[in-house]
Amino acid sequence: MSIVVQKFGGTSVGSADRIKRVAGYALKEKEKGHDVVVVVSAMDKTTDALVKLAGELSDVPRKREMDMLLSTGEQVTISLLTMALQHKGAEAVSLTGRQAGIRTDAVFGNAKITSIETGRIEGELSAGRIVVVAGFQGVTEDGELTTLGRGGSDTTAAALASALKADRCDIYTDVDGVYTSDPRVVPRAAKIDGLSYNDMLCFATMGANVLHPRAIKHAKEHLVPLIVRSSLKEGRGSVISAKAQKNGSIVGVALQKGISVLTIHGCDGGESLILYDLDSHHIETERIKHREDLALIIKDEDVHAVKKIVSGYSGAYSHFEIAEDLSKVCVIGSIQSSGEVKEKVTNVFHDYHIGKVSVWESSVGLSALVDRGDVEKAARILHMHFGLDYIESKRAIL
Amino acid sequence: MSIVVQKFGGTSVGSADRIKRVAGYALKEKEKGHDVVVVVSAMDKTTDALVKLAGELSDVPRKREMDMLLSTGEQVTISLLTMALQHKGAEAVSLTGRQAGIRTDAVFGNAKITSIETGRIEGELSAGRIVVVAGFQGVTEDGELTTLGRGGSDTTAAALASALKADRCDIYTDVDGVYTSDPRVVPRAAKIDGLSYNDMLCFATMGANVLHPRAIKHAKEHLVPLIVRSSLKEGRGSVISAKAQKNGSIVGVALQKGISVLTIHGCDGGESLILYDLDSHHIETERIKHREDLALIIKDEDVHAVKKIVSGYSGAYSHFEIAEDLSKVCVIGSIQSSGEVKEKVTNVFHDYHIGKVSVWESSVGLSALVDRGDVEKAARILHMHFGLDYIESKRAIL
Repeated sequence: MSIVVQKFGGTSVGSADRIKRVAGYALKEKEKGHDVVVVVSAMDKTTDALVKLAGELSDVPRKREMDMLLSTGEQVTISLLTMALQHKGAEAVSLTGRQAGIRTDAVFGNAKITSIETGRIEGELSAGRIVVVAGFQGVTEDGELTTLGRGGSDTTAAALASALKADRCDIYTDVDGVYTSDPRVVPRAAKIDGLSYNDMLCFATMGANVLHPRAIKHAKEHLVPLIVRSSLKEGRGSVISAKAQKNGSIVGVALQKGISVLTIHGCDGGESLILYDLDSHHIETERIKHREDLALIIKDEDVHAVKKIVSGYSGAYSHFEIAEDLSKVCVIGSIQSSGEVKEKVTNVFHDYHIGKVSVWESSVGLSALVDRGDVEKAARILHMHFGLDYIESKRAIL
Repeated sequence: MSIVVQKFGGTSVGSADRIKRVAGYALKEKEKGHDVVVVVSAMDKTTDALVKLAGELSDVPRKREMDMLLSTGEQVTISLLTMALQHKGAEAVSLTGRQAGIRTDAVFGNAKITSIETGRIEGELSAGRIVVVAGFQGVTEDGELTTLGRGGSDTTAAALASALKADRCDIYTDVDGVYTSDPRVVPRAAKIDGLSYNDMLCFATMGANVLHPRAIKHAKEHLVPLIVRSSLKEGRGSVISAKAQKNGSIVGVALQKGISVLTIHGCDGGESLILYDLDSHHIETERIKHREDLALIIKDEDVHAVKKIVSGYSGAYSHFEIAEDLSKVCVIGSIQSSGEVKEKVTNVFHDYHIGKVSVWESSVGLSALVDRGDVEKAARILHMHFGLDYIESKRAIL
């Protein structure tokens, strides 16, 4: 039997009427003969209301209690969606993260899924039921409730799809797919019909909010195709799968504003403690080692915390400098002859007078730090020069 | 170490400010040197909002899904109360019904507690933490979430107190104790300082909403004193314990409106199937066997369902008659020379022209069915004639 996992976010389940519509989507797949697992988030206003209540009781509520509080949101949605399905005559059952067998580590507020025991879900599917699972939540070995952090429901859906060896995982969202760039910045950005896990990972890492990196990694594990599609209109969406792009193809240009670079001089290999410290504070950084210098690319909002951590180390490590007010632009794709792409980017930046700070390669493409004021222009120009512009578009460029 | 269990209902935790006050109550007991377990209900408006949402999705939502939905209410409260306690500098931890080890049967919407594994709670208490437990909920052997039905949080508190062999269980409510009768009907009703489990059971069975019969039974099991007290003002409350009243003492007069009696004629012992059927429909009845007649005393709202069940049986059992528009009044206390009390009641009814249908004895006192219009007058007169009137009262009688 083929299994389809569907995921609907907080906006898609934000009211009784919307929940009824989601029930329709699930039923449609069931009627096609698939086994259906639906993963849902909390109704969009619920989480805000709960966070506000917590704020009235404590300035800094502990994360364990926040997880206890917030995980109720998804539990409400699963029961309501199941009622809607049953009202339409379908057999359905709701399962909390725990009942769905979702085990996590004990990092409250940002837990990672460590394993999924699929027995209960498989049993319910065999009995012909649509299974409605609470996204965003899991349970530790000790029975503590955890939440998965940002993008948590995507992660639940992809991890379940992978564990169940599903045929596909449909991520319903408010956009109709993944775009070659942010259409608000690059008017000629086009929807991508298909892209690889690695390319999507780069989009996600660059802050495209469509999918969380963890979700992509889970799907990649058992090569389950992820389909990003609209919950508002019909469409084929964007398929993220193992189907390789042809070598050297560039799939998009991503951009990220509000970037700072903290450079630590004289790192002779002893910097691992600092990196461990940053990890344990859940601060995401991109790290570039250049001889004895370590450059940490961080978000502006993390600058204060990173400074504090680094200056806690004595000696050489406490000598650092920081460059603020930068942005990052990234040419995404599998680049075989990388020197060529790097040269092209450098030339384009030179021709168009874009203030470039540095350019470097990674496994997913090529990144450049530019002055904050230049990033939108840089993205549009690179998008055009790498042949990504949607030509049929009647929208004006620049 | 002495353990105190406290229970706060939906009104007592109805806002952030009220939750802070509840935290104060818990801290006060902790500072006295007790180990403290706090059981809370859902915030008073939460349950209504959830029920309304369910109603928008299904006319008859299934009970399993209603339990999934409603049990989120208490989970919200436990996390908020725990945050409030931690904010005041106390060590505290919230536990769902499941985490607190509360096992139930699988009667969704009206589950019974079958056992409590106290290991987790005891561990947390030993670590010096105030333990905040979600009332009203439990989990079946199969890991299904259940709710305990009306008065569920009282039941959780009393069952926990019993399992933990607590020193006492404080039931905080919006009244300052148990009264000799309903003060809205009998102005001279007085607060009772102490009464036995059995007497309280009779008050509860008669529909005094202060405590659910199941809660009393749990407390009685290990003879844990239950104290009904106000969450609004200081006071000693009413202590329900094993301390025996002196023989023959009458503690109160309870009344219940909206009663019907369904009499089945010709029951020769074969009526057990009917009774089993009523039980399985969770219809509470009081049963009186008189020769070959079986009288079922039922609430008006259950009349339709009971008629339907009884008429499903062929032969003699389908011959029944029904008396509606009745009320019940009950003289509560341990009655040794019962004939005396019965005679007194009969005489009083005669003297005051009260339309009596029948009078019968049970383990907890003496009950009478009277015409609906006479019940309030009957209660006031019996209250006076059994010496229960609060004489210092300056309120006018009748």
